[in-house]
Amino acid sequence: MSDVVLTTFDWVPETPRGYVRDLRVRWALEEAELPYRVEVTPFGDRTAEHFLHQPFGQVPWLTDGDIVIFESGAILLHLGASSDALLPVDPQRRNEVIQWSFAALNSLEMASLPWSLFLFSGDTEETPGKQLLDKFLAARLGHLEAALVGREWLAETFSMADILTADVLRLVDRFDGLAQHPACRDYVARATARPAFLKAHSDQIAHFAAAD
Amino acid sequence: MSDVVLTTFDWVPETPRGYVRDLRVRWALEEAELPYRVEVTPFGDRTAEHFLHQPFGQVPWLTDGDIVIFESGAILLHLGASSDALLPVDPQRRNEVIQWSFAALNSLEMASLPWSLFLFSGDTEETPGKQLLDKFLAARLGHLEAALVGREWLAETFSMADILTADVLRLVDRFDGLAQHPACRDYVARATARPAFLKAHSDQIAHFAAAD
Repeated sequence: MSDVVLTTFDWVPETPRGYVRDLRVRWALEEAELPYRVEVTPFGDRTAEHFLHQPFGQVPWLTDGDIVIFESGAILLHLGASSDALLPVDPQRRNEVIQWSFAALNSLEMASLPWSLFLFSGDTEETPGKQLLDKFLAARLGHLEAALVGREWLAETFSMADILTADVLRLVDRFDGLAQHPACRDYVARATARPAFLKAHSDQIAHFAAAD
Repeated sequence: MSDVVLTTFDWVPETPRGYVRDLRVRWALEEAELPYRVEVTPFGDRTAEHFLHQPFGQVPWLTDGDIVIFESGAILLHLGASSDALLPVDPQRRNEVIQWSFAALNSLEMASLPWSLFLFSGDTEETPGKQLLDKFLAARLGHLEAALVGREWLAETFSMADILTADVLRLVDRFDGLAQHPACRDYVARATARPAFLKAHSDQIAHFAAAD
């Protein structure tokens, strides 16, 4: 019997469905073939208990026996300790995966998410600040593009770094932000064709649809 | 004799001095009392060797024997494995530190750095996109403020999570962005009063000044 519990929202609006961050954890759990069950916390009124587990009022958090942990990056690192499919044991390869995981969250998503927020807001004004954000994202994607050419995955084999990176790029792709970066686009297509992603994605869609 | 080598730029302009990310690593090395030496890579013309070690053309990267690793978060996690001063061994406490470290880099800095970029650009236009960024940062700081009230450090004792969080907040504070968040401001003051921070900071300033 599994005691791994993933907590996510009970419901979210249509727009974020398929992009809620429990997806990263679902995907990792599927890749690692670790059984888990899902519990929910209200989307509408964030409870005191929610903030106790996730101080920023976000989801997901994971319960694994005695451990309760938030931040999808931290959760994947935790799961990686029990699965070579996410994080190799060999120190060199392990560090390679860890550095690319942090790169996804700190070098890449820091540029891509604010850019997406701007597009969500419907803001089309070309102010100097907006242009700096565009340039910031283009530079990071350009460097990633160069790193991805001729590579299947970021490290020697598929890892948690690819889950994080592909999920970050997926949101850029949704706004057609990868048009100038074919290696990035192909990489996202490759990653999201994996059975573990497809299962995780359809499970998230079904979870929120069930609450409509 | 030490074989820990921190690579940073040979020189940077005045504005970023004191804020270049090798500071996070210097600070961690000082807290852990690990000896290290500094090597440099050109700021002006980023070399092919630079991109080999750091695909985004940033600094720092760390060499520790056979391991070469980039991303300051990944480097701190690597150093944490050999120092309880950065990362506790106990699994519960360890997870607490790791989740807050990811929160600093992904939940907090993702909101604060784009906001700082906007201010750097001199953009004062109140477009919907800019207002969304302001709101994004204010929400994250508000949640952190609530978490910090009555706490000295994010986990039970000072850790790598505090190095990352305080360094993220320091840049917000530079633009007077913590005026409405006194617990955050006090926390930064507390963290940056530590001898290890003061040493790391003055070492970085001296390093770049020596190249003028």
